[in-house]
Amino acid sequence: MRVPEETRTVVLTDSEPLKVVLLGCGVVGSQVARLLLSKGDDFTARIGRRLELVGIGVRRPELERPGIDPALVTSDVMALATRPDVDLVIEVMGGIEPARSLILAAIAHKASVITANKQLLAQDGATLYAAAEAAGVDLYYEAAVAGAIPIVRPLRESLVGDEVTAVMGIVNGTTNFILDKMHTQGWSFDVALAEAQRLGFAEPDPTADVEGFDAAAKAAILASLAFHTRVKLDDVVREGITRVSASDVATASQMGFVIKLLARASLAEDGSIAVGVHPTMVPTNHPLANVSGAFNAVFIESRNAGQLMFMGPGAGGSPTASAVLGDVVTAARNRVRGVAGPGESSYSARPIASSGAVASKFYASLLVDDEPGVLAKIADCFARHRVSIQAVRQDAEPTEDGQQARLAILTHTAQASDMAGAVAELRTMNVVRGDVGLMRVEGV
Amino acid sequence: MRVPEETRTVVLTDSEPLKVVLLGCGVVGSQVARLLLSKGDDFTARIGRRLELVGIGVRRPELERPGIDPALVTSDVMALATRPDVDLVIEVMGGIEPARSLILAAIAHKASVITANKQLLAQDGATLYAAAEAAGVDLYYEAAVAGAIPIVRPLRESLVGDEVTAVMGIVNGTTNFILDKMHTQGWSFDVALAEAQRLGFAEPDPTADVEGFDAAAKAAILASLAFHTRVKLDDVVREGITRVSASDVATASQMGFVIKLLARASLAEDGSIAVGVHPTMVPTNHPLANVSGAFNAVFIESRNAGQLMFMGPGAGGSPTASAVLGDVVTAARNRVRGVAGPGESSYSARPIASSGAVASKFYASLLVDDEPGVLAKIADCFARHRVSIQAVRQDAEPTEDGQQARLAILTHTAQASDMAGAVAELRTMNVVRGDVGLMRVEGV
Repeated sequence: MRVPEETRTVVLTDSEPLKVVLLGCGVVGSQVARLLLSKGDDFTARIGRRLELVGIGVRRPELERPGIDPALVTSDVMALATRPDVDLVIEVMGGIEPARSLILAAIAHKASVITANKQLLAQDGATLYAAAEAAGVDLYYEAAVAGAIPIVRPLRESLVGDEVTAVMGIVNGTTNFILDKMHTQGWSFDVALAEAQRLGFAEPDPTADVEGFDAAAKAAILASLAFHTRVKLDDVVREGITRVSASDVATASQMGFVIKLLARASLAEDGSIAVGVHPTMVPTNHPLANVSGAFNAVFIESRNAGQLMFMGPGAGGSPTASAVLGDVVTAARNRVRGVAGPGESSYSARPIASSGAVASKFYASLLVDDEPGVLAKIADCFARHRVSIQAVRQDAEPTEDGQQARLAILTHTAQASDMAGAVAELRTMNVVRGDVGLMRVEGV
Repeated sequence: MRVPEETRTVVLTDSEPLKVVLLGCGVVGSQVARLLLSKGDDFTARIGRRLELVGIGVRRPELERPGIDPALVTSDVMALATRPDVDLVIEVMGGIEPARSLILAAIAHKASVITANKQLLAQDGATLYAAAEAAGVDLYYEAAVAGAIPIVRPLRESLVGDEVTAVMGIVNGTTNFILDKMHTQGWSFDVALAEAQRLGFAEPDPTADVEGFDAAAKAAILASLAFHTRVKLDDVVREGITRVSASDVATASQMGFVIKLLARASLAEDGSIAVGVHPTMVPTNHPLANVSGAFNAVFIESRNAGQLMFMGPGAGGSPTASAVLGDVVTAARNRVRGVAGPGESSYSARPIASSGAVASKFYASLLVDDEPGVLAKIADCFARHRVSIQAVRQDAEPTEDGQQARLAILTHTAQASDMAGAVAELRTMNVVRGDVGLMRVEGV
């Protein structure tokens, strides 16, 4: 195939600037504005054309914004998004509406869009993609997953010649901070959460973080990219960290594990994909185990590249602005050349496995009567539910009325529904005392 | 700015295939061929056009190549590279010639080029870039640095809205394996090298690896990308690992460090950049310290994104093929749209610091007379050479004629020339016994 010469665009640095609109001027937006206004020469050199920030849409235009010309600021966000002369619209407001309407309007007006909006992409990415494709414009969103870590572009482009089999990520800094404190300080979940709130790492209403909603949105986006399949927020099995106890953490530590909230998407042998967010035990020598504090990391397994890991700051104004501006430069370059970058790749259209069909290794912890034959009964229960045991550890614990034993059981890979069946039966057994602890295990 | 509608290209999956030529069919090339021939449908879906492998250029066409139609194989590599109907040329032969002539000829014939050739890029990347730009074709080389790890694309595109201040990488698996064995097994360099050779991780002539030439080529490429400046192999200060002793390793371990061969490029306050390959002490809690065996990792510091790390397999047929094929898909997509991706970005044209002007922290180890006033003399020597001491540890060692002391000194950031001056003077001092050990330190 020969490319006709006349479609190539000559880049001229001295021609008309590319006009940029910024929607949202909070923690991320203000950093984006600052960099657009202060680093103009670098952007010009890297794009081959000048960028001109022509408007900033905000809810409260009356607020003081140091370094930003008040003439740029307006609350009429829809007028900004639909300016006919605008080339690039950056959306960093978050939330579903009005972000969704603004992005669709901007696309309809032939602007390329750069967004950091994970909720919107996870709920309705397909609509945005379809609109961008119909308009022949770009939709970039590196900042929507794992902050400054380049992960969207590697999945969309670097690994596009490979077959990804699993993606596992620590993609929520708040829960990572909380679990970290539970491990290193021995704190309870409540104490660690209170400290995260005091430091501003957790919201006054921490639900989106601690119940795994934020991580689930990112899991949906990562899974869509990794498996060339549309995955929506509703497809993600979600479990937060509110029920992780100090004793779970202590037991995990004793066994050489740390508990991390992992967003995980994997390809099963039957070609279906499983997407979930779960507190997960990871061995301390696994690369993900050492990702601490507010850092994020994404671990990828693929057929040819093998195991890759990407690590970096998962949030914050400057890191997120870095990801946004990388996309701005790319979209601007495309604009100068008169092309759009890669669109949605959903050709695989793989089925999403039901939550019960999702397989992983599990760790079960239970207190039992300390008498001969108990382990055999427990093992038989697992076997009847098709769960194979990889390792068992039994420790005697003195009690008021004699002795009991704590069983720590690591299973081979089992289906979640089988595991749930085994645990349900264990809970009815006379020899089992109290509740049965259950957690997923990765990396062993 | 408005993009004229007529420059947009409609992608049709059923039109003429893109023709691909492969130059080289060794460890990497055979994997590339296997994947191109077996994963055709995925490539078609991801590109929007079929890829057709039309020829494989090799030195010895008579060898058996399972799964490859012998009709595709030829030793007339120049005829393949210059076929007028070819869209993409993949060069995985390595070495300077004939790779250089073949790539330039392919570009002159309007083919886009994907190469894994670090030596050639580090020696003469500017010529290749200029040729590609003049011809309006792509030059992609993700596989040239750190194997399967997506690092070229993140630097070229994801971080293009940011300002990178330092890049540090473990980019040579052979030396990482050797240093690993020295640390974990207590082996000498010679024993560890012999084991690496026995396992096929090191060449019979290991010079390119152990003397840092391979890492230096990668350092030049990383520095060029990170700092938008042309950096050539000759600009890289290079020090291999052949003089790292078992005692250096033991001392580093005692102090909580591991020794890694780091390729490092950093931006100095005066705007110059320093590029070097050095055995370097890294604290055990640094992310780079835990990158073991044949893995590679690249650590990036940037103004806005902060600290990022990328880790993965640094070599091997399948991982390198993954990186090559990611580039193939990207170049093919560009081809279908009639555009070229980002070209060379060397607008910054930063000066390269001389080796003496390069600053870092250093660790010095020396044996001295164990008597009052010695530390004061040593400290005074450092001070007169403008080297500030961050920490000192002094341990008495019994000897035949009484006692001596071992001083372990960690400096604050100092210029290499100042440090060299201090060490040269230390070597002449009467209180100093034997040689002075010196190594760079990062991450403290």
